[in-house]
Amino acid sequence: MNIGPYSFEEFIEKIKAFHGSIAPGIVAGGIMVDIARANLPEGEFFDVICESQHCLPDAVQLLTPCTIGNRWLKIAETSRYSLTFYNKYTGAGIRVYLDAAKLTDRPAIRAWFLKERPKKEQTLELILDEFKRAGTGIYSTEKVTVKPSYLTDSKKKRSSIALCPSCEEAYRSDFGKICPACRGEGPYL
Amino acid sequence: MNIGPYSFEEFIEKIKAFHGSIAPGIVAGGIMVDIARANLPEGEFFDVICESQHCLPDAVQLLTPCTIGNRWLKIAETSRYSLTFYNKYTGAGIRVYLDAAKLTDRPAIRAWFLKERPKKEQTLELILDEFKRAGTGIYSTEKVTVKPSYLTDSKKKRSSIALCPSCEEAYRSDFGKICPACRGEGPYL
Repeated sequence: MNIGPYSFEEFIEKIKAFHGSIAPGIVAGGIMVDIARANLPEGEFFDVICESQHCLPDAVQLLTPCTIGNRWLKIAETSRYSLTFYNKYTGAGIRVYLDAAKLTDRPAIRAWFLKERPKKEQTLELILDEFKRAGTGIYSTEKVTVKPSYLTDSKKKRSSIALCPSCEEAYRSDFGKICPACRGEGPYL
Repeated sequence: MNIGPYSFEEFIEKIKAFHGSIAPGIVAGGIMVDIARANLPEGEFFDVICESQHCLPDAVQLLTPCTIGNRWLKIAETSRYSLTFYNKYTGAGIRVYLDAAKLTDRPAIRAWFLKERPKKEQTLELILDEFKRAGTGIYSTEKVTVKPSYLTDSKKKRSSIALCPSCEEAYRSDFGKICPACRGEGPYL
């Protein structure tokens, strides 16, 4: 089977180079990207939402033009293993998820996905082999409409930039009179 | 000047391929990554926090092993143009930021960074040329300690997985008795 423009084995190499290790979740994610694409009207532009921060965003970044930094990829953490390709003006989208109900005959994927066994009792080769044999048969899709907060409002003006009177760094003035970090909301002690 | 293992021009090509367009912010981000690395003890492992979702995460993903999907890169949105490399056990880190106070003689960078002029009145070539000539001279650094919530607790057990009684999908059971999406916190209408 192919994943995006790659053979299964080539995609494994791409994962290793970008993600640092061969995470089974990115293999699943790559197949889910292909399913989402196949269900979109041809040539339509799309944005992507991942419902998990783990692994899935890297499959999207490897196989689509959508990245975290260009904001075409967004994360809405529900912890479900799912991604949605959607039209950023209308919100119409196709959601793809790894379907636990379809894993009855996939013991290695089940053990990994549902954490049925400790990691050290699992074998990467078995999991990958099952993913390869399962093809697109362990995923489900549904049509969804994405909430307005994830859409592009072409009339909305982007915030202006101000210098924070406290730290003197540039920040988005719609965050308030001082920057979030100086209000204690930054990541530092 | 070089950025990571690339010449300035090679890095521009890498940006185009990954991010889709030549965003000045990723050029700045690449230089900031190099400054952070140069200020870390040699060979020390690190995680990264970006304080802006715009562009900066893509510089980190292009130049370090840290990605959104492997969780070595995290975003803490304060909207300041800054990144921090830190030890994920101790929280000791080095923060690098594009310093507005050092842009007096950099009119093209100022116009872009502080949005002093509309985008269509700015010239990408002028901005890139100023970045190249400015080298590392327009950034500042400070030592920081990252909040415990960003650190790795080696004793902490990862949540188990449950099937949501409402949507029947797998989710992290520490989110509660039903999954966040079925509580109305998902990204769909």
